[in-house]
Amino acid sequence: MRDKVNLKESVARVREPWTPRIVGALNGQHVKLARLRGEFTWHSHADADELFLVLSGTLRMELRDRVVEIEPGEFLIVPRGVEHRPVAPREVEVLLFEPEGTVNTGDADDARRVEDPEWLD
Amino acid sequence: MRDKVNLKESVARVREPWTPRIVGALNGQHVKLARLRGEFTWHSHADADELFLVLSGTLRMELRDRVVEIEPGEFLIVPRGVEHRPVAPREVEVLLFEPEGTVNTGDADDARRVEDPEWLD
Repeated sequence: MRDKVNLKESVARVREPWTPRIVGALNGQHVKLARLRGEFTWHSHADADELFLVLSGTLRMELRDRVVEIEPGEFLIVPRGVEHRPVAPREVEVLLFEPEGTVNTGDADDARRVEDPEWLD
Repeated sequence: MRDKVNLKESVARVREPWTPRIVGALNGQHVKLARLRGEFTWHSHADADELFLVLSGTLRMELRDRVVEIEPGEFLIVPRGVEHRPVAPREVEVLLFEPEGTVNTGDADDARRVEDPEWLD
C-alpha cells in the first residue's frame, strides 16, 4: 500500500509541461498530475473518459461547441469520443483521472505525445 | 456531457454524514462527495480500491497496522481487501473515487450502509 500523496507538494515536482506523471493507481485507472502551459492539440480518446481537476490557474477547455473555464477546486469530465483542446493562457496545475494506458494526445499526431507516462518519484 | 463541478460548493450541500453523494461518473467509476463525523465502522471492499481526497478537516484513517492522518489536499488509496476505519474527530469533507456500485460499509454490518447512493442535484 502506497503512502498518502500531497497534491501541492507533488505537482510542484512536475516541471515539464504537457507531461503527466502518475501518482496513484486504482481499479485500472491512473491518477496523474500535470503542468499545462499554452495551447495543447485538439484530440479525443476513443475508449477513455477523462477527468480534469484544476489545482492552480484557470484551465480553458475548448470543446467544439463551447468553452469551459475550469478554476481551482473545480473538475470537468470529458467523455470518450468528445473532441477537446486544453488551453492554459497562464500556467495551470491539474490532476487527471483516466484509465491506465491513456495517451495524453489521444488520436492526434503531436510531438507532445507521452506513450508511457512515468510515476512521480 | 455534464457541467463542471465546484467541489467546495457541492460538498457544502452534502448535509448528512456518512452518506456519499455522486457528482461524477467515468470509466465505470464514481466520483462522490461525503461528510464524515465521528467514527465509522471497520470494513473492507473485496473488489474495490478506494481513493480518499480530503477537502477540509483531518481524516484519521485507521488501518490494522498503523494510522494515516490525511490533511486537506492529500489523498490516500486503500487497496481492495485492506481493512480500514475512517475516523473524523472533527468534521471532514472528502472526495471519494471508487467503482460504481461500491457500498460505503463494504463487508461490514452497519446501519449507515448506503446501498445505492444518490446523485447530488
